[in-house]
This record gives sequence, C-alpha cells and structure tokens, in this order.
Amino acid sequence: MTLKPIADLATPALLLDEARLDRNIARMDARMKSLGVRLRPHIKTAKSAEVYARALDGAVGVTVSTLAEADYAFERGVSDILYAVGVAPGKIERAAALRASGADLILTVDSLDGARAVAAKGEAANDKIPVVIEIDSDDHRAGVKPLSGAARGIAGFLAQSKGAHFRGLMTHAGGSYECRSVEAIRAVAEKERRAVVDTAAMLKADGIACDIVSVGSTPTATFGETFDGVSEVRVGVYMFQDLVMAGLGVCAVDDIAISVLTSVIGFQADKNWLITDGGWMALSRDRGAAAFPVDYGYGLVCDERGAPLDDLIVAACNQEHGIVARRGGGALDPSRFPIGRLLRILPNHACATASQFEAYDVVGADGAIKARYPRLRGW
Amino acid sequence: MTLKPIADLATPALLLDEARLDRNIARMDARMKSLGVRLRPHIKTAKSAEVYARALDGAVGVTVSTLAEADYAFERGVSDILYAVGVAPGKIERAAALRASGADLILTVDSLDGARAVAAKGEAANDKIPVVIEIDSDDHRAGVKPLSGAARGIAGFLAQSKGAHFRGLMTHAGGSYECRSVEAIRAVAEKERRAVVDTAAMLKADGIACDIVSVGSTPTATFGETFDGVSEVRVGVYMFQDLVMAGLGVCAVDDIAISVLTSVIGFQADKNWLITDGGWMALSRDRGAAAFPVDYGYGLVCDERGAPLDDLIVAACNQEHGIVARRGGGALDPSRFPIGRLLRILPNHACATASQFEAYDVVGADGAIKARYPRLRGW
Repeated sequence: MTLKPIADLATPALLLDEARLDRNIARMDARMKSLGVRLRPHIKTAKSAEVYARALDGAVGVTVSTLAEADYAFERGVSDILYAVGVAPGKIERAAALRASGADLILTVDSLDGARAVAAKGEAANDKIPVVIEIDSDDHRAGVKPLSGAARGIAGFLAQSKGAHFRGLMTHAGGSYECRSVEAIRAVAEKERRAVVDTAAMLKADGIACDIVSVGSTPTATFGETFDGVSEVRVGVYMFQDLVMAGLGVCAVDDIAISVLTSVIGFQADKNWLITDGGWMALSRDRGAAAFPVDYGYGLVCDERGAPLDDLIVAACNQEHGIVARRGGGALDPSRFPIGRLLRILPNHACATASQFEAYDVVGADGAIKARYPRLRGW
Repeated sequence: MTLKPIADLATPALLLDEARLDRNIARMDARMKSLGVRLRPHIKTAKSAEVYARALDGAVGVTVSTLAEADYAFERGVSDILYAVGVAPGKIERAAALRASGADLILTVDSLDGARAVAAKGEAANDKIPVVIEIDSDDHRAGVKPLSGAARGIAGFLAQSKGAHFRGLMTHAGGSYECRSVEAIRAVAEKERRAVVDTAAMLKADGIACDIVSVGSTPTATFGETFDGVSEVRVGVYMFQDLVMAGLGVCAVDDIAISVLTSVIGFQADKNWLITDGGWMALSRDRGAAAFPVDYGYGLVCDERGAPLDDLIVAACNQEHGIVARRGGGALDPSRFPIGRLLRILPNHACATASQFEAYDVVGADGAIKARYPRLRGW
C-alpha cells in the first residue's frame, strides 16, 4: 500500500498510531521480563493478527474470548490458545474439532457440570482436552472461590478423567477497573495472584499439579509488585490503552493508540455544539469513563494530528451523529471548526470502539496512512 | 435453507421473529394509510434488504444514515433514497458518483457552507443534486431553527443554484425518546410537524416550493394525530421495536421482533447470578432503557421460545459474559438454569444490538430457523 494522507480517508475511520502501539507493547514486555513472568496476550481487543503478532515475542501463546478468535489465531500460526470464557456445552464439539486439526486449545470451566461435559466430549473424541478452572478472585464475574471445595472437587474430577487433562487455574481481576488509586490496584493485583497461587498450593497438597497459574488484567499487570508463582499474565487492552486506562492511571492520554477520525458536519451556535459524523455506530455506546473524576462523555476530541483540543468531548451520540461540546460547557468559535474539518476521538474503551470497525487505518511516523489491517468479527 | 432447530445455532446469535416483524410493519402501514401519509422507511435499523423490503409496499423510497446504505439499497433496486445525515463535504464526490449511476439520491444540509459545497460539486458534475434542509424541531441534534432566516437563506441559495435542486425540508423529533407519556409524545409529534409545515409555508410565500416535507421518529409516527402538510414519514425501529419503545408505550414487550440467543455458562450461587455467553459484544453497550421507570439492565431475559422469565434481566456485561439476575434482587433456582440452557435476551435498542451481528437467524411460525439474512455494516 502506498502512503496516503489522513484527509483521503472516508469518515468515520479507525486510526491506529503505530508508534504508540509499539511503545505500549514494548513497555509491558519490559515490565513482564523484569518481573520474570511470561505474557499470554489477549487478542479480544485487537482482533487482528497484524496487531497482536507484535506482542508475541517470548509469549506463552494467546488468550481468546471466542472460538472464532481461536480459529483465526490457529490459522495464522499460533498453536497455544487459552479460551478464557467458561465453555458452553454446545461449543465443545467445535473446540474438539480445532484440537483435532492441531491446535493446543485449552478450555475453561468453573463447575463440575462444565468439567463433565468437556471430559465426555474428550473421551468420545479420543482426546484429553486441556482444561483450566476459573477462580473468582474478586466477586466480579465467573469462577469458583479460591481455596474452595468446589475448586478441589472439579480439579479432582478432571485429574482422574479419561477425556480431560487438568492444566491449572486462571483468574481475571475485573474489579481492578473499579479502583481509584494505584495502591488499590496493587492490592487487587496481590489478591488476584494469591487467589490462584494459594489454590494451586492447596491442589498440590492433594497431589494435583497446576502447570498453568494464570492471572490478568491490564491494570493489575501494570501495577502488580510480584508475580511469584504465576506462570503467565493475560492482557489485551494495554496494546491500545484508552480513556478508562488513563482514568485509572495505567497510561497517559498520549499513550492511547487508537482514535476515530470524524468530520465536522454542522454547528449549533445557540448550544455551542459541533455536530460530527462520529456517532455511537463508530464510537460504541461504551461510557466506561463516566465513573471517573474526569468524564469524557463518548470520547476526548483531538485535532487531525492527535493533539487534544480545549477540553472538547463528545457529549452525546446518535447512531451517525456525535455532539461535541466543551467539557463543563462554554463557547466554541465556529471559525475554528468549519464543516469538513477532521477531528480524532480517543475512545473510552478500546475493545468496544475497535469492534465497531472492519479495519484499522495505520498511521505511520510521518502521519500518513501506511497500511490497513482487517479485524475479525463474530463468534 | 432447510429448517433447523434453534438449539443448533452457535450462541450468541441474533434471532428475528418473522411473525412479529410482519405484524409491526403491517401495523405502521395501516396507521399511515389511515392518516393519508406515505412512509419512507429508514433502513439504518434493519440494514438488510430481506427485512426492509417488506416495508416498501406503497413507500416513497428509503431513508439511509450512511452512503454505504445508499449504495446497498440502490444495488438492490431502490432508487429514491434520502441520506438523512448532514453531508460532510468529503462525501459529496461519492454521493455524486452514486447519482451518476442512476440513483435519485437526496442529500441533507443545515448550513450555507454545506449547501455551497453540494452545489459546487453538482455544478462540476453537471448535475443538479437534490437537497433538503434539516430543521431542528426540538433542540435535540442538528438542523436550523423553524421559520428562521437561516432556513430562508439556505433555501434561497439552493433554489437559485446551478448545481443543486432544492427539494424541501426534513426533521427528526429525537426528543420524543425523552417523553414519559403518550400525551407528551403527541405534543412532540405536533411540534415536529409544525416545524417543517410552517417553514415550508414561509418558503412558499417567498416563492420557493417544498415538494418534500419529511418528519419521522417511531414514537411520533405511532402517536401523532395528524400529518397534514407532511409528504412522508421516516421510521426504522418500528420494524423490530425494543425495550425503549416498550418503555415509551409505543409497543408491548411481545411486539419485540429481535432477540439475542445465549447459553448459560455458569451460576454464582452466593450472588444469585447466572453467567451467559451474551456479553456487550452481542447485546451492545446501549443502556437506553435505564432512564425509564422499568430499567431492564442490558436486556430482558426470556426462555428459548421467547416468553419473559421471572423478571430476569442482564444486570451487567463484560465483553463475552452476561450477568443475569432478578430485577431488584432475589434468589434463583440453579436447577432451572443448567449449563447449556438457552435464553433469549430482548434488546434495549434494536439498532445498537442488531449492529453487533453479521446476520439475522429468522424464526418462523413453527419456532424453527427458516432463513439467514445478512446485514450490511460499515460506512
């Protein structure tokens, strides 16, 4: 692809700043190496091999949130794949087929019924399907309690079963997104680590070994002080970062690597609103930053080159209209924002905003578009 | 396609109940016919010719929110197309190319700068590009004020220009979504109608005719008492309906024609949560019903056949996890919700939820899947 100026893109478009992407990946890599733990990058944020391949040097493998991502990663050369969502019984057949084609796909369960369904399918397929048990480290979502009889019971069943291979434990400290200080994130990170490390020790005393002891969220990976006993860290958002991560102190606003390019299509003088063609179909409906001291609405507005503008935010969205106003109100000079002016919007939540687009338009160091990376969608 | 049972679908999947779809379309058609006004269905909700074609009998043409929708509709046989978003100057070239291929594409402006950009491109293309002026009937989004000098100035410019053909006026009463009674919606509908009808009368007195006088939102189309002076009504959500429309009294819950099929993947006994594989990637992040007396979270939960269940709602979402709980709290019997059980989730906002999927799985009268309708995406 030849270079083309940003102004040649049809709006809305999803821009990916390559320098920021590579910097974010290098920073996390260096941190994990200094702490002596390996990454298993989560590809649910990028959903693009051209993006996540940059994060695989030295990695254990990848993490996926759907079997479509697993198929996609395996077709593109990654074999070691952890499907980190409790598997629905109806999906085990497809997972087994991917294993039969050569992928080392690992499934997740958090119940005896789930474990039985996997083991039965493995036995029927003459396979020992690798399984990890999800541990609920912070009462946030799924998983069995750390050190629980449930964890012990499922691990015992799997260790004895003919159709499954018990690999270990995983947890995700989703509660870290609700922290409001680095100290609080550090405490969640330690709780996350202890949840799996202590449960693995309990199982070891029962004679059941865990070769996978997996934790992960971008905030806890960024601030956790030790990963002793952990075999791998799963992170995805860190590649792009977003306004939620900036609100948590995980990154600076100028680390955010994706933005939505929009055009000004109108001005409402009496309300001091710019109207753009970046509505929720482009930005997503994610209002993740609303809970932080600085609420960026549906996104922080930057100029065409990416510099934030005068505290402008996307105050409201319709399907194909964004309403841009000054945060907290105040006058806008329409002569600075003529119809057709390009603006970049930084996203609240990188996973949600990126998922609204079919591809990334990759911005190189000179500010021109150097490539287009397609994204996976669907399940 | 041969019939297949719902249980054979991979979850999450987007179900479309054909009987409800046809009933919703027939109801709006009958109402518009009884009021003597024609429809210009908005295809931004369905984004599928197999769906919106059912609504075109007697229609003026279609409304679109993107040029991708315009291309799509023209390729599938619809010529009269209103692009109802203020056109960005960078998009006029593409619009002119679609016109050159034979589409009767009408553009929207709400500023003199926008009108000038269209007229200049029309003149360069040796075309008179049809244009409507957007009127802001309720201070909700874009448009010039009713009866304003701005409306008069833009219309006067367009009526004289060599490269544009002034067609008339359009408005969208988005404020109707904020109403909390049928009486309030009726008042908004009358304000919406008057905004364009009175402005058209003002222009007529100036010697400028409006052959298009266009209004539209599903709530105002459902409850407006007269459409005198209006040439067409633009509506899209009515085909599917959703929990926001139910909250407004526009439809009943059992009119909602789309739902997301999900599988139970876990149970958290201490919190009375079911975990499903329907997260925000499937349901969208739209919380449109949050502002109504009944907040359905991320959606109302039904059984596999579509009957609402015990006040269950999707209380929270992660990317690929839905957390289902009783609205207002309370115990859940896990024996009723084993892992693998299928549930249907009714959406807050049909446009947003449908946009998360690549296709509809169409449920026929016997409850089996009879067809798969692809959806358009992108811009």
